[in-house]
Amino acid sequence: MPPAQEQSVDAAPTRGARRRERTNARLMQAARVLFARQGIDATTIAEITQEADVGFGSFYNHFDSKDDILDAVLVASIDEQGSVVDALTEGLDDPAEVMSVAHRHFVTRAQQDPDWARLIVRLDASHRVLLRALGARAARDLDNGIAAGRFHVADPRVALFAMGGALLGVMQAVVNGDLDGDAAVHHAEGLLRMLGLDQADARAVVALPMPSI
Amino acid sequence: MPPAQEQSVDAAPTRGARRRERTNARLMQAARVLFARQGIDATTIAEITQEADVGFGSFYNHFDSKDDILDAVLVASIDEQGSVVDALTEGLDDPAEVMSVAHRHFVTRAQQDPDWARLIVRLDASHRVLLRALGARAARDLDNGIAAGRFHVADPRVALFAMGGALLGVMQAVVNGDLDGDAAVHHAEGLLRMLGLDQADARAVVALPMPSI
Repeated sequence: MPPAQEQSVDAAPTRGARRRERTNARLMQAARVLFARQGIDATTIAEITQEADVGFGSFYNHFDSKDDILDAVLVASIDEQGSVVDALTEGLDDPAEVMSVAHRHFVTRAQQDPDWARLIVRLDASHRVLLRALGARAARDLDNGIAAGRFHVADPRVALFAMGGALLGVMQAVVNGDLDGDAAVHHAEGLLRMLGLDQADARAVVALPMPSI
Repeated sequence: MPPAQEQSVDAAPTRGARRRERTNARLMQAARVLFARQGIDATTIAEITQEADVGFGSFYNHFDSKDDILDAVLVASIDEQGSVVDALTEGLDDPAEVMSVAHRHFVTRAQQDPDWARLIVRLDASHRVLLRALGARAARDLDNGIAAGRFHVADPRVALFAMGGALLGVMQAVVNGDLDGDAAVHHAEGLLRMLGLDQADARAVVALPMPSI
């Protein structure tokens, strides 16, 4: 255990870190509100700092640019949905059902909240943002299915990127109004087929009711 | 048959249309050269018109913005690769092999020409550009496979967008150096599984040698 002197020296950066964390959260929250209320293009960094009630200059202690805070807001928002899916799938034993619920959740969410989905798919950083927010979860669910002998893929890394790309492609089409209400279930079926389930099996898994929290 | 008077009235807009077409082609070629030589960000509209040897103002008779001509250059470039795939697959009878060759061609091209692939996947318009350039061909190949009883999908439209998204996701990963040399074959195998082939069948199709023109 360190002496008292050292503790108090340590306490200063901790307070600083906590303050920094709070400012970061306020900037993120302000940006989220403004992007949603008036659009990204119409929102300036000055408005974000004003809404967050922090000095203009301190924005740059946290983010490089408006695009940078937009990325952060989107990663946080997708990550939040990833946590929702984790909660939804907590009691499920079949890795195929877990994967089905995850993809159905995201496509359904794109249908129910097109503004949110438009933000995600409009980015040239879409793949990178999705990977940052969901890559670890997707890789975990894929590995579980492979370990359980439920999924059979030629290359797990190719499958990971193909899954993410397919999800983005379908979400993009939903946002553009190109797909109807069954898109989530139909996408999940194709996905499970890609991961190695046969048609009857995939169709049965995606026909299960969505779990609730 | 129209009288001579009308013919000559018709001839003027045709000459105009041909001139317009030539100017368009020169602007596209100039943009292609400059984007490749010095990058998109560093290229101005003034440089494009100078390289094309047309007046600055006439650019706007053809394109709205630099992004607009970039879109057009990319669509033309992907479309060109689509024609290469059409030639490659001309003699093939199995719709599954046609689809396999098409996707292997695009992933392999991303590996061999990362600058080209980076241009395609960096766009927030990636899905739209790919759909404009390849959507009709992809839908045709998908329909052929369904009609032949070779593909079995829950919803052809969902399959179309999922296929395109998966291809973009894999190309993106190739550009980022996240996938190795077998990515093209492994992606094609997953794709054929998604379209309804069983594992042994999909693996056999993607193991066939690539046709040559």
